[in-house]
Parts: sequence; structure tokens; C-alpha cells
Amino acid sequence: MERTLAADLPGKVGQRVKLEGWVHAVRKFGQVNFLILRDRSGTAQTVLDPAALEKISGLQAETVVAVEGTVEPEERATNGVEVRDASLQVISPVTDVLPFEINKRVLKPSLDVFLNNAPVGLRFPAKAATFRLFSGLLHGFREYLSGNDFVEIHTPKLMGSASEGGANVFAMDYFGKPAFLAQSPQLYKQIMVGVFERVFEIGPAFRAEEHYTVRHLNEYTSLDVEMGFISGMDDVMDLLVALIQHMVTSTAERYPREAEMVGMTVPRFATVPRLTLRDAQRLILDRYGEDHTAEPDLSPQDERWLGEWASQEHDSDFVFVTHYPTAKRAWYSKPDPADPEYSLSFDLIFKGQELVSGAQRINEYEEYLRVMEARNMNPASFSGFLEAFKYGMPPEGGFAIGSERLLMRLVGADNIRETTLFPRDVNRLEP
Amino acid sequence: MERTLAADLPGKVGQRVKLEGWVHAVRKFGQVNFLILRDRSGTAQTVLDPAALEKISGLQAETVVAVEGTVEPEERATNGVEVRDASLQVISPVTDVLPFEINKRVLKPSLDVFLNNAPVGLRFPAKAATFRLFSGLLHGFREYLSGNDFVEIHTPKLMGSASEGGANVFAMDYFGKPAFLAQSPQLYKQIMVGVFERVFEIGPAFRAEEHYTVRHLNEYTSLDVEMGFISGMDDVMDLLVALIQHMVTSTAERYPREAEMVGMTVPRFATVPRLTLRDAQRLILDRYGEDHTAEPDLSPQDERWLGEWASQEHDSDFVFVTHYPTAKRAWYSKPDPADPEYSLSFDLIFKGQELVSGAQRINEYEEYLRVMEARNMNPASFSGFLEAFKYGMPPEGGFAIGSERLLMRLVGADNIRETTLFPRDVNRLEP
Repeated sequence: MERTLAADLPGKVGQRVKLEGWVHAVRKFGQVNFLILRDRSGTAQTVLDPAALEKISGLQAETVVAVEGTVEPEERATNGVEVRDASLQVISPVTDVLPFEINKRVLKPSLDVFLNNAPVGLRFPAKAATFRLFSGLLHGFREYLSGNDFVEIHTPKLMGSASEGGANVFAMDYFGKPAFLAQSPQLYKQIMVGVFERVFEIGPAFRAEEHYTVRHLNEYTSLDVEMGFISGMDDVMDLLVALIQHMVTSTAERYPREAEMVGMTVPRFATVPRLTLRDAQRLILDRYGEDHTAEPDLSPQDERWLGEWASQEHDSDFVFVTHYPTAKRAWYSKPDPADPEYSLSFDLIFKGQELVSGAQRINEYEEYLRVMEARNMNPASFSGFLEAFKYGMPPEGGFAIGSERLLMRLVGADNIRETTLFPRDVNRLEP
Repeated sequence: MERTLAADLPGKVGQRVKLEGWVHAVRKFGQVNFLILRDRSGTAQTVLDPAALEKISGLQAETVVAVEGTVEPEERATNGVEVRDASLQVISPVTDVLPFEINKRVLKPSLDVFLNNAPVGLRFPAKAATFRLFSGLLHGFREYLSGNDFVEIHTPKLMGSASEGGANVFAMDYFGKPAFLAQSPQLYKQIMVGVFERVFEIGPAFRAEEHYTVRHLNEYTSLDVEMGFISGMDDVMDLLVALIQHMVTSTAERYPREAEMVGMTVPRFATVPRLTLRDAQRLILDRYGEDHTAEPDLSPQDERWLGEWASQEHDSDFVFVTHYPTAKRAWYSKPDPADPEYSLSFDLIFKGQELVSGAQRINEYEEYLRVMEARNMNPASFSGFLEAFKYGMPPEGGFAIGSERLLMRLVGADNIRETTLFPRDVNRLEP
């Protein structure tokens, strides 16, 4: 008999079906024994006869089974149906007790214990839902960009030199030569603007940062975008907002059950306000009475205030802050021609926390040479990158979204490790 | 004025338009000066007036320009139109001569010179077309799998132990501990079958192989698939054929111009024959008179013969060879219960060369412990992996497609470096 998924049972009332999945729970109410079976589509309630129950006697939760029975209406069951007169076949027996229960409403273990046992812990339905939403966000990312003529690229993670500076880069031996793990695909995506004008990449980025925070990882999945022939930085910001809006709304539409399970709601976009760092600081002074107008960056409290202001005054969960001091941003950020002390850079703040950084880039070869000299960088280490600019590059810009951090914020997690399948930090390389 | 793409010109006859792009070529025929402009959509022929020509005097190919003019029919131009009375604005000047010409029919430089200058060399239209087809293949891969309920995952590339054995793994220091670069997402995708049943991943894989061949790289983009609740290895092979067929046909439909430029044709699938290694060797003995029946694997010549046989007798460019000796396959491959000397493994041969390897996997915890003991492996190094199997895993299997190698074979390239944006080999870490 062909397999039926739990979610498809309501359409099969009165029919004999075969389910396959995991023993999520066994519940005994007097003479009636319920087996809750879990498969990729959800759970199903089955009523076992004594012979079927005998077969899983001594076996534990997560045993893999096939159940055959008849679908009948049952108001009290999850989908309004249950499978009765069920016979059972054990596919893979489980004889050990799980490190923690994954069939209750909440997960009890500490984050550390959970992560140590992620290979089974991730089966907890709300955890699986979280990472199904993750796949939805990536789907939406590509769908929007492909529909707007962006080309997907995959660029090397093994590098001959450090793209973003030398402090937080992992180094290794590569057949007797030094190699570095890519901190981002930054230089490659800029190069590829010369080929395709519009590119994106989804791939790992590696940062050898030795501190532990709730929102940093040493390896993360970066969503990188770069676009040429822009008329200015606003084009890049427009793209970013439309992209995130599509990612979130399409994910919520695609996976409503999962969104509900983890409490993911669609943020308010409205019109995302944009203000320069200096204007943002003046706004904070006027509205909140704190004078940060001489600071080169926003503090976490500043970000929360700006988030509050955007929410209250603009009905938006997002706000752009632009024109950070040139000296504080990456070397490839373009200084504002009207005031080169400030750069054509932006941060997108989501609900009071920075979520995405981006910028218009320098697109002229000679300007790169001047910047490299001023910053004591060796152009020879960037010869491939510089070649692309030597031979004609349009005005261009882009951004990178940390996918785990976006998911973290959307589902309201406290720690980025809750929205990463198998996180890597200074203390964790396993599982 | 809003920008018009070269490909959209035929719909704008009689209108004034603005094009933006690169100076692909300047051609002078007597009094008439043609500028061929290239953008992401293709090329456009423009007729420059003397004032416009003056503006690019002294400038070189790849200068970035904006051209404004009127679209007129012109039979001899590529799209049947050209842009006349064109004025010109230089956006980014180019004053150096390219390392080699990228506006002729063929690329002249050696592969090595090309790769050294890939940042501009990739702008050669047939090269750009190759990598646009690459993005199409990835799109088709995800489209097919998402449509069949597979969930996208991203798993760590920094590992605490070597997943596929220790010989060809890159090692590095990770905050004072040893770490390894993932040779594949094999163990993670198997773990995730326990969560989602069906998963896929697109990501880099790293192999520290010190030899140079035309079909191996030290870093490549692996297309990984894993599926649970299979009734046997044939389910996995069915999926693989349907998947590749969708990838190639959807790419050819999406990018017909690019497919034609690089000569990519859709292979013949028909019914892909499947035969065991031993039957394949007997077929070779019968048909070609060579006795390889005692060999544990196919030779390259064997693969060519089988490809010829499949083409002539089954009208298929593909053939599956199954049941390789268990001792010769990865430790997680499932031995055939009917004859444990042979495993439930397969290779897919495409036009006489191996393209994909796959297998049904061991899915029982106790069997893994026995295999690890027999192979002198330390179960403690695989505790996360083993935990997933200890707590119930259905029969499952999968495969990995080397994306660059698939593209290489589809476009008929001689070297995998021709179908990799920025290849990494024992001699090459740049650009």
C-alpha cells in the first residue's frame, strides 16, 4: 500500500491507509491506546489494538513504524481525524530513552544541552518548524532576486589573502602555502558585477572572533547581494526592503502552520524612514535628551530608540541609518562626494537592532589605489579584485544579510544559536 | 531617462532610449562608426556621431558608458535594430588595454592565462553564458526538490573531526583546537533525514587532494540530496534521473540563447538502464572481449564502453552501475542484505564518464557500531551522527552531484576549471 502523509488524512476519511513515521508519543486512556505518529507533514493520532501495542512493548519514543488502519472522523484529534483498527510494523526499533523529551509543549533542556543533542533535539516540532521557515526565507531570497535578473554565483571560500582585513580570519596550510577562509564573498561579488551586473550568493562566511555573544557565530550563512548601474545608494536600500518584505511574506504564506507554531509574524514595513547618522543622533538628542552627536556609531540603546521612533512615528519596524564616518566603514565603501568624511553606507535597523549593513562601493580603479595607500594596504594582495575595476565598473553597491540573525529576529529568539542548525562558536565544533 | 536593456530594443523601434553598459567593441566602416555596447542582456549596435566618438577617443574597450539615441530597424544588426544619432556619456573610463581580447568569436589565451585574468575574462560573452547556465542548473535543482517536499539545509563546514576519513582533509587551528574543513555534508544530511525526511544542500566541499587532474578541484560546489522512507535504492536512482532531467531541460528553456552560445544540448534520458557491476563487467566481456570481471571497480575505458552500449542499445546518454564491493565504498553505504560483499551503491555514468555517486545508507545504529569496529573507526568521533541513528532512522539514501562537473559535461568542456568561476587547485589560490 502506498504511504499517506499525516497532513493528507482528512481527505481520506473511510479509506484504509498506511502511515510511516516516528512514534512521537504513546498515550493510554483506560482501554484505549493512542499512538501519535509524526512524519514530515505533522502528526497523526492512531488507535492501536492490543496486538499492535504488543509490538512496541519495550520500545521507546522515536521508534520508526508503519501503521495501517482506517481513517475516521474524530473531533478531538488534531486534524479532525484519527486512524482506527491500526496494525503496526516496526521499521527501526529504539531501545534507549531520549536525552530529553521532544513530545511535550516546551523543550526543557538548557541551550547547551540542547545543542549537544541537536541531532535528535531538532526533531522537536517547533524546532523543525523554525528551520523549515529558514528554508522558506532562502527560497524567497532567491525567488525575488532571480525574478529581478540577478544571477546566482558560488565563489571560493579558500583565499590567498584576507578580504576583510587580517584580525579575525582563520588561517590554514594549503599545500605549503598560507590560505585563509573567506570572511565574506565581498570581493568576488563586486568582481562579478562586471560580468552579470546583478549577482547574489548564499554561502558560509567565517569569522575568527574569539568572543562569545548571543548574536555572533564563527561560521554563518551569508546572503550576499551586489548590483551595478545604480543611480545611488537609495537603489540599494530600495532593493533591500523589497527583498526582505518578499522573503518574510512569502515564507509566512508558504508555511502558515510553522509560522504559527513559532510565533513568526510579518513585520510592518510601511515606508521605511531613512536618516543620516548625524540626523539620527540629533533626533535622539531632541527626543530622548541624550547627546551622542559626536559618536562615530550608534550604541545599542541608540538603535532601540530609533526603532521606537520608527515604530511610533512611521509605523515601520525598520529604519535606515546612513552616512557613517568613512574611516569606520570597510575600505571599499564609497565616500560621499559631497562630504568625503562620511560614506555612502547604511545599516538597516529592525525592531531596534542592526540587521543588515550595506553601501555603495568605490567603483573607480584610481580611487581604490588611493584608499589602499591611505590605509597601508598592499594592492598586490588584491590584484584580481583591482583588475575588475581597472577595466570598467559601473556605480554599484550591495549588502549582506546574516540569515541566522534574520531568522532569530523574526521568531523572537534570544540567542542566534537557537536559529542555527549546528552552530559554531569559540567553544563549539560539535556536533 | 530610464535605462533600456539591449535585449529590449526590438520593442522600442522609433523611440529615444538610453542604454548603459560596456564598450564591447568600436568598429569603423568608412564614415560610419559603430559602438557595440554590452550589458547583462546582450549586445546592441549603436551608430555614433563624431562628437560622441570624440568622447571615447583614447579610451579602451570595457569603458562603461551611457548612450542615448533612437531605435531604428537595421537588418544587419544582431537584434534587427540599431541605435542611431547616438550621444554618449562616459561613466567609467578605461585607459589600459585588456590582457586579451574578449570581443572576438573565440578566446585566445591558454587556460592558465585566462584563469589569472578571470575577473575580466569572465565577461567574454560565452563565458558569462556558461555561468548563467550554472545558475540555471542550481535553480532547477532547487525547484525540483522543493516541489517534492525536500527542505533546504545549510550545515557547518568547520568540523571537529573528518567526516570522510583523514587522508584528504584540510586541517586548521580553531582557537587552540584542531578543526577540519568539511569534505562533504554527508553526516549532516543523514542526521537531518531524522528531522525533515527529505533534505538538500548546496554548498562548498573541500578535498585536500594533492594531484592535478582535469576533473578534480580542491574546492567545489556540491549538490547534496538525502531522502528517507525509501523502499530501496531504486527510489534514490529514480529521483536522481528525474532531478537531472528537470535541471537540464528547465535550464535550456530558461536560457536558450546561452545554451546555444556554448552548445549545451539536452541529453537523451529515455529509460536509463541499470546493471550491477558484475553484470556490467560480463557485458563488457561479451561485447568488447575484455575480461575485467575480477576488478573491484570500472576503468575509464569500461565507463566509455558502457556509455556506448547505453547509447546504442537504450537510446540513453546515462547508465547506472550498481552493487559495488562493500569494502570499496564509503563506510555508511548499506551492504546488500542478500549478498553483503556488495553494497546498495550506484554510480551514474553520463556519456561514458562517472558523474554522480550515491547509495542507500546503513540506517541502524547497531550496524554502524559493527562497521566502525570492523573499519577501526572511533565511534566517539561520530557521536552526533550516531545519536541520530540511535533514536530511529528510516531506510534512507542519497547522492551528491558535483555541480562544476555536471556543467563541464553538459557544455563539453575539457577541463573542470573552464566551468568554475575561480577554481582552486594545488597550484591556484588566486584570484
